[in-house]
Amino acid sequence: MEYRILNTIKSPQDVKKLNKNDINVLCNEIRTEIIDVVSRNGGHLASSLGAVELTVALHRAFNSPEDAIIFDVGHQSYAHKLITGRFDSFKTLRQEGGISGFMRPDESEYDPFVTGHSSNSISAAYGIYKAKALSGQSGTAIAVIGDGAMTGGMAYEALNNAAAKRSNFIVVLNDNKMSISHNVGALPRAFTRMRNRKGYHKMKFAISHLLLKLPLIGRPIYNFVFSVKEAFKSIVYKNNIFTSLGLNYLGPVNGHDIESMESLFAIAKSYSRPTLIHVVTTKGKGYSHAESSPKDYHGVSSFDIQKGKSVSNSKTYSDIAGEALCELANKNKKVCAITAAMAEGTGLGTFAAKYKNRFFDVGIAEQHAVTYSAGLATGGMIPFFAVYSSFLQRGYDQVLHDAAIANLPIKLLVDRAGIVGDDGESHQGVFDVAYLSTIPNVNIYSPAYYDELKNAIFNTADTSELSVIRYPRGVENKNFDGEISGDYTVVSQNGERVIVTYGRIFANAVDAQKSLKNTDIIKLNRIYPIFDELIDLLIRYKEIYFFEEGILAGGIAEHIGCRLLQKGFSGRYNVNAIDGEFVAAATIPSALKKYGLDTKSMIDIVGN
Amino acid sequence: MEYRILNTIKSPQDVKKLNKNDINVLCNEIRTEIIDVVSRNGGHLASSLGAVELTVALHRAFNSPEDAIIFDVGHQSYAHKLITGRFDSFKTLRQEGGISGFMRPDESEYDPFVTGHSSNSISAAYGIYKAKALSGQSGTAIAVIGDGAMTGGMAYEALNNAAAKRSNFIVVLNDNKMSISHNVGALPRAFTRMRNRKGYHKMKFAISHLLLKLPLIGRPIYNFVFSVKEAFKSIVYKNNIFTSLGLNYLGPVNGHDIESMESLFAIAKSYSRPTLIHVVTTKGKGYSHAESSPKDYHGVSSFDIQKGKSVSNSKTYSDIAGEALCELANKNKKVCAITAAMAEGTGLGTFAAKYKNRFFDVGIAEQHAVTYSAGLATGGMIPFFAVYSSFLQRGYDQVLHDAAIANLPIKLLVDRAGIVGDDGESHQGVFDVAYLSTIPNVNIYSPAYYDELKNAIFNTADTSELSVIRYPRGVENKNFDGEISGDYTVVSQNGERVIVTYGRIFANAVDAQKSLKNTDIIKLNRIYPIFDELIDLLIRYKEIYFFEEGILAGGIAEHIGCRLLQKGFSGRYNVNAIDGEFVAAATIPSALKKYGLDTKSMIDIVGN
Repeated sequence: MEYRILNTIKSPQDVKKLNKNDINVLCNEIRTEIIDVVSRNGGHLASSLGAVELTVALHRAFNSPEDAIIFDVGHQSYAHKLITGRFDSFKTLRQEGGISGFMRPDESEYDPFVTGHSSNSISAAYGIYKAKALSGQSGTAIAVIGDGAMTGGMAYEALNNAAAKRSNFIVVLNDNKMSISHNVGALPRAFTRMRNRKGYHKMKFAISHLLLKLPLIGRPIYNFVFSVKEAFKSIVYKNNIFTSLGLNYLGPVNGHDIESMESLFAIAKSYSRPTLIHVVTTKGKGYSHAESSPKDYHGVSSFDIQKGKSVSNSKTYSDIAGEALCELANKNKKVCAITAAMAEGTGLGTFAAKYKNRFFDVGIAEQHAVTYSAGLATGGMIPFFAVYSSFLQRGYDQVLHDAAIANLPIKLLVDRAGIVGDDGESHQGVFDVAYLSTIPNVNIYSPAYYDELKNAIFNTADTSELSVIRYPRGVENKNFDGEISGDYTVVSQNGERVIVTYGRIFANAVDAQKSLKNTDIIKLNRIYPIFDELIDLLIRYKEIYFFEEGILAGGIAEHIGCRLLQKGFSGRYNVNAIDGEFVAAATIPSALKKYGLDTKSMIDIVGN
Repeated sequence: MEYRILNTIKSPQDVKKLNKNDINVLCNEIRTEIIDVVSRNGGHLASSLGAVELTVALHRAFNSPEDAIIFDVGHQSYAHKLITGRFDSFKTLRQEGGISGFMRPDESEYDPFVTGHSSNSISAAYGIYKAKALSGQSGTAIAVIGDGAMTGGMAYEALNNAAAKRSNFIVVLNDNKMSISHNVGALPRAFTRMRNRKGYHKMKFAISHLLLKLPLIGRPIYNFVFSVKEAFKSIVYKNNIFTSLGLNYLGPVNGHDIESMESLFAIAKSYSRPTLIHVVTTKGKGYSHAESSPKDYHGVSSFDIQKGKSVSNSKTYSDIAGEALCELANKNKKVCAITAAMAEGTGLGTFAAKYKNRFFDVGIAEQHAVTYSAGLATGGMIPFFAVYSSFLQRGYDQVLHDAAIANLPIKLLVDRAGIVGDDGESHQGVFDVAYLSTIPNVNIYSPAYYDELKNAIFNTADTSELSVIRYPRGVENKNFDGEISGDYTVVSQNGERVIVTYGRIFANAVDAQKSLKNTDIIKLNRIYPIFDELIDLLIRYKEIYFFEEGILAGGIAEHIGCRLLQKGFSGRYNVNAIDGEFVAAATIPSALKKYGLDTKSMIDIVGN
């Protein structure tokens, strides 16, 4: 599209030159462009709309890239991308070879750090800040973190570290009063209390602002006032979690008032103690559909701008998992569901409403979620923790140490397992099989179809094993009518060759088999631990073709290959998996093709 | 030994019956027994000595095992073990088949949860608490957590969750004014402020105590007083990090005054909001050597009780790593060292003193440590994060997401890699190779000897790769005089058979080879990624014997085996590693023998 101001913005320097009117025009144009592109490509809409003025204010008050600005998670980085030289390419957002939906250092010097996973921005920004200080580089570093991300333990570890030393390090709390769905836990309640205490901070702000505007004498008086800290604090400060850690606290400030934010940022830069600035924004701001239902416009597929999002009727794997859990919970009062701020994404909406007492949203806190589940299991409950594959990476130690050593029967529902598509590297669920299978006592299931997923949930619920049930993003491709049950299924042509696979891409193998002769399929359901019966079965084939939608190193193909070799298998062993690289953003079919996991690749690889 | 009281204590019930005098005798006897056994077996002395009265008070105020008491980390659980039926077996502390140095549910019903890794107790206890509430079981759950462990993000995630709902859930902060070495960060400073504010809490305690003692009318008045919360708070409360999360806060109380603690515990039980009780203890209490130098008596080997710990002269792998870093830092101002509260354990004492500006102890915060390192690397520094293998499990996602996606050249010094001995399951460093090799862009080195370790540190410092250098606990067994350099070393007998191994157990292979004919050794230094040259070399052998001091699933033997199979290798492939189980406490030689990794096993397995 053509915009009067946005088209002229090549770098943040151009934003600094604008007058007040043009700034408002720019913000409107940014919103229009974000809504337009996201309505076509899908993406994270509501967060980005909420952070438009905040982003403009940051780029006016600081000098990026010399000042490193890190947007935590990166959902809200679209405005940042638009005013840092990426307006022209923004229409390729989240497409193969296009602009990433998150911050990517290889995309722009204005993106100092990889974002995607929550709560890492303070650690990264503080590291960058320290490196600048140690090496005498100019500039500072600013972490911009949402109220949701602030519930992650990592953010607190970083604050504990950063607050201990003198510096002018800056954290901006972008408080949009909800994380992805409604915030949970004590912290959001504390934020509410803080928001309701505006008076105090307004006063402090007003004094600072006034003093700094006085020529010559302003700065000395200001310094004097702020050096009498304790006295000053007792007047205008209220203690909160940040001040109790020793941070300066400024705010709350209206996150859609650019001028006020700019002044606060200037004050924070001049402090010699790390400062947290509390900015209150409205998620979805400027697009009525998103403002009135921000949760539904957090991450969206393409939609009609006028009508808003249409409700999709097709059920996903997540929906099926949620339904199965509800069925179980209805029969068995011990069944609980746990989520780390992903109730909607993991299909737990109905469970949350129907079994309120047994539903636990613990915030963006995967570590706690795993160990809390282990505690519930210790007390005799049956906890199902539904979590995205790539986010469970945060709970690796907890699965190992807190659940597996004592062999506690927690149940992990690993959603978004496999390739996820346009979210790219940070969100790919291609590591879970490898990292979870390093852990003794873990049992992993990878159903291909909805029925199999339901059965896996029903069958493991009552067992005393630590179970992982993993399933992909999206909808099933039910193209096989035969019976699927037990640990594995053989689809036989009485062949001497066999395709071994699991999960969603079994459907591709079924299609491929139609074009192949003399080729069986062994479809695994219980993929780990490897069982002797499977090795005995496989060793009889002359050629084994393994297709694995996951990382090669530590995957099932390696576990089985090494066993076969030890048992003396000397036939052909061909492995197709993701070998030693991160999977870039692309549609799922395109990525599957790249790694030889689509139907055509299977046919080509197995040959005729 | 024979003790007047301790010998008669078969369960906590017996402790409840004691009068004041006998309680004091018991505490002295517990200390004598702990010092005696730890002086012979080694163990965590100072923490356990500091928590004797706290433990006795907990067991008098609560009803374990109905009330689940979880000691975070478990360093301080020795007194708990002595009064929960394990006095007779306590002399087997940390020995093979003996009493664990941590809490172990399979050891006693009084140990409700596995401990060992820091900061998990609140999550676990709150899960147990909720399970009791949901299923109508009686009893509560109490997390006892040190000030050091409180710096871990997981503790905060759990507090955020637990503080949000009404309950009488209890957290006891065992504040011994230091974690393993001195506490770092903002939180310890906040605790100091809280300790200096005794008056407020003493008053609250006194009022509560008094009221509850009044017959009949005491409880109603008490309830009334405490229901006028806001008013009450404004008089006797000071805000701190816990109250700002919405927890009740009681204390600080003298952690060696049993009566005071018992009263506070009783009050907390009666609340309908989660409560944190701040208990101040002296680490090493009652043993002068430990009291005056608690850091040196955190974890100890056997020692002479009268003389105290003797200073060991033999350098360890950790010391060598520390020396190498100091050498590097002297030459290159970009070299930094990062630790997560393990400066002494990882040999960074000298670095910390000499290069203060470039040394960062971030608290028990492995997640932050990795990402902070990634931030430093982004800013052009060369960060070495020295961390125990089993603790780095907490940073898996951060290595993957925050460092590896952008291929940032952080350097991980993975200490205690391999079998660690008497600390048992939770501390074994047998997973790092498997979980780190799932991550693209990671390069792993596993030196066998000090020289090789030094070279690995020197050689990787200037590279742009993400490097992991892993080395075991303890001292080298330098039994090979040949040259070791490059990615791998062949010790040739022109054999048709080959032993493949890496790390410390190369020394065993060297010894085994002396008794074997026709057997080469290939000693890997750069163990991951697997390089083609190695596969080409191995494929020529008729028999390959792989010895790996680590978990089988996802280890190097599997990576190589699967490659060999794909390349058509059809000789013998024999793998010896830890297969699908956790390694129990035992001496290192005993555990190596169990898994076929000692010299004699190698000779037997390869045969003649």
